[in-house]
Amino acid sequence: MTISHLLTHPCKNMEASLVREVLHYSQQPDILSLAGGLPDERFMPAYPDLNALVDSRQYGASEGENSLRDHVVSIVAGRGLTTAADNVLITNGSQQGLDIVSRLILDSDSTILTEQPTYLAACQVFKLQGAKVQDVVSDAQGMSLEALREAIDLYNPKAVYLIPNFQNPAGHCYSIQRRKEIAALLDEKNVLLIEDDPYRELCYEEVDLTPISSLVKTAPWLYMGSFSKVLWPGLRTGYVVSCAVFTSYLIKVKQASDLHTNRLGQAMISHFLSSGAYPAHVAKLQEAYRQKRDAMMAALNTHLGDLVEFTVPSGGMFFWVKLPSGLSSKLILEEALKEKVLVLPGIPFFPCKSPLEDSFLRLSFARVSPDDINKAVAVLAKVIKRLIV
Amino acid sequence: MTISHLLTHPCKNMEASLVREVLHYSQQPDILSLAGGLPDERFMPAYPDLNALVDSRQYGASEGENSLRDHVVSIVAGRGLTTAADNVLITNGSQQGLDIVSRLILDSDSTILTEQPTYLAACQVFKLQGAKVQDVVSDAQGMSLEALREAIDLYNPKAVYLIPNFQNPAGHCYSIQRRKEIAALLDEKNVLLIEDDPYRELCYEEVDLTPISSLVKTAPWLYMGSFSKVLWPGLRTGYVVSCAVFTSYLIKVKQASDLHTNRLGQAMISHFLSSGAYPAHVAKLQEAYRQKRDAMMAALNTHLGDLVEFTVPSGGMFFWVKLPSGLSSKLILEEALKEKVLVLPGIPFFPCKSPLEDSFLRLSFARVSPDDINKAVAVLAKVIKRLIV
Repeated sequence: MTISHLLTHPCKNMEASLVREVLHYSQQPDILSLAGGLPDERFMPAYPDLNALVDSRQYGASEGENSLRDHVVSIVAGRGLTTAADNVLITNGSQQGLDIVSRLILDSDSTILTEQPTYLAACQVFKLQGAKVQDVVSDAQGMSLEALREAIDLYNPKAVYLIPNFQNPAGHCYSIQRRKEIAALLDEKNVLLIEDDPYRELCYEEVDLTPISSLVKTAPWLYMGSFSKVLWPGLRTGYVVSCAVFTSYLIKVKQASDLHTNRLGQAMISHFLSSGAYPAHVAKLQEAYRQKRDAMMAALNTHLGDLVEFTVPSGGMFFWVKLPSGLSSKLILEEALKEKVLVLPGIPFFPCKSPLEDSFLRLSFARVSPDDINKAVAVLAKVIKRLIV
Repeated sequence: MTISHLLTHPCKNMEASLVREVLHYSQQPDILSLAGGLPDERFMPAYPDLNALVDSRQYGASEGENSLRDHVVSIVAGRGLTTAADNVLITNGSQQGLDIVSRLILDSDSTILTEQPTYLAACQVFKLQGAKVQDVVSDAQGMSLEALREAIDLYNPKAVYLIPNFQNPAGHCYSIQRRKEIAALLDEKNVLLIEDDPYRELCYEEVDLTPISSLVKTAPWLYMGSFSKVLWPGLRTGYVVSCAVFTSYLIKVKQASDLHTNRLGQAMISHFLSSGAYPAHVAKLQEAYRQKRDAMMAALNTHLGDLVEFTVPSGGMFFWVKLPSGLSSKLILEEALKEKVLVLPGIPFFPCKSPLEDSFLRLSFARVSPDDINKAVAVLAKVIKRLIV
């Protein structure tokens, strides 16, 4: 039976996911994996007692539970973003936020600008809408302002998609100066900002994290957040905050997508946020992940310091490591796997073909112990040194 | 701020939902509502104890939990549909199943055929893809075979969408003869079947419920089910079973949509299914809802028997009531609301404009007590009689 005549053009062209293949290996018990993007389940709180929660068995509202929407208003207010609960949509994780936003604005005539590199699953949803994804060069301060201006003029994009804080994969954190400049440019050009901010709580240094959405004055914006990195990713709960004109459209797309987000998950997160335990929990997470980050920094310096390039991320889960010139990330994946260490090539994080795409590894320190981080990086160094010769 | 230049063509044209507006009224405490499609929460089991469940806090698989996929294989095998767990995708309710399937096959060049009337939220997702939705006349046995053949020849549709059992809104249940004829026609024309089967457990008579998907021999098919009508709709858990060629595509669209379905909900439903309590629970539900159906049948006969037309549904939640000639369902909605009774006009269930669209009410008996059903229908009768004069 053949079905290719039935599939939409974007679906026909969906690529086999390198990540999916790679992560398949991570389920082998003797593998040391730096490849995944999963938080450490040892840091996840126990679920609250069901008796402490409101009844969530019946169908609920497409926009989400009001108690959780109110919490989101407070949370983003603490970040400098003022909004009302009416402008909060609860989603199945921020991935669904991205998806709903994409369906609202992108079709096969659309271009969306992203950082280079950028979150691979964002590209998946953009491309599923048939849109052209155009990346814009970025440095340690964030997306290049000049390149963004050029790209806006050249491509007339529907939106610019940014992950300003501890980006997946590159780990960058925008300077406040860059945030302001980008906000001003988006205002000037009246271009929609899609700001994705799932990692901000995993912050290990004093850095400015002002949402760019709070800095734009006249340009439209959509801001996405998640509870998956700090609480329970298995519950799939995130949110989209938008300027008011988008609200009714977002809710309609959400309703068509799946009626509403799982209410039990929303109730659990609301309860945890109401309990007052959240700030201490986040502080504990930051301390625990900071130790792992430091362990990976030390291991990279010890074993690979003179061979690879990287910037120490001030938050998040990832080191973005530039390989010695001429080395292929895919080859390293294969060779390291023979030694039972799993790493993720940077290739799928490049939305457009690039001569650089095979030159990076994304290494996650989130789910492995400091000792295992050191062991894994030592093996990686051995493999790299062997391949250089 | 204007954003209409940012929206996709289908999003720009999303209609304000009459249902959404109507259901808004149902939250007033003194309203007797026959309008919603919600099951009765008094029949929902308590959630299982968290300690009895597997740990569901971490990210999970896009295709769903294997334990639940295995249960779905057994469940659909009991219906005559043989499949393997690999061909089961767990979704956020069957609404997301519809959405994922739509995104896989429908674009602005596509036509999809549906019953007339049909499930309004299915039309929403089809139209969100920009597809043309063409309805096909249906009778109490299901979609007219001749009309289906004509429509296939005329429109060259991507798929035919059917709800063969206790349809929302019309309540029809296909005869086995009609099921076989439609399967043979789809085989002959090689047209994709999308079969939506959320109501089948709410069955109050001895009727044949053979999935048409199990009767097609060569045509491709996708079959959707849900746990929302018999367990906990707030958990948003359903499934798509497909012929094997679709599997990998469905998983990729699911992954792009929201990574995976809430794992705690999946764990709870798996646990309930494993407990052995499911058959007795369904039998209890059937008895309880049958009483309500009978109450509505009696009330309609008593108060409106000579004025309206309806077929007693052998399952599901709804009576589809044809009004006296010349009466407007929207006017009745307004007038009944003044008397604190809420009913749902049939208009949004007609995908295409029809001279009949304002002539029906969908009355749900699922969430009101038999006494209140009688009271509400008596009020409705009073309103209808007043408007006839």
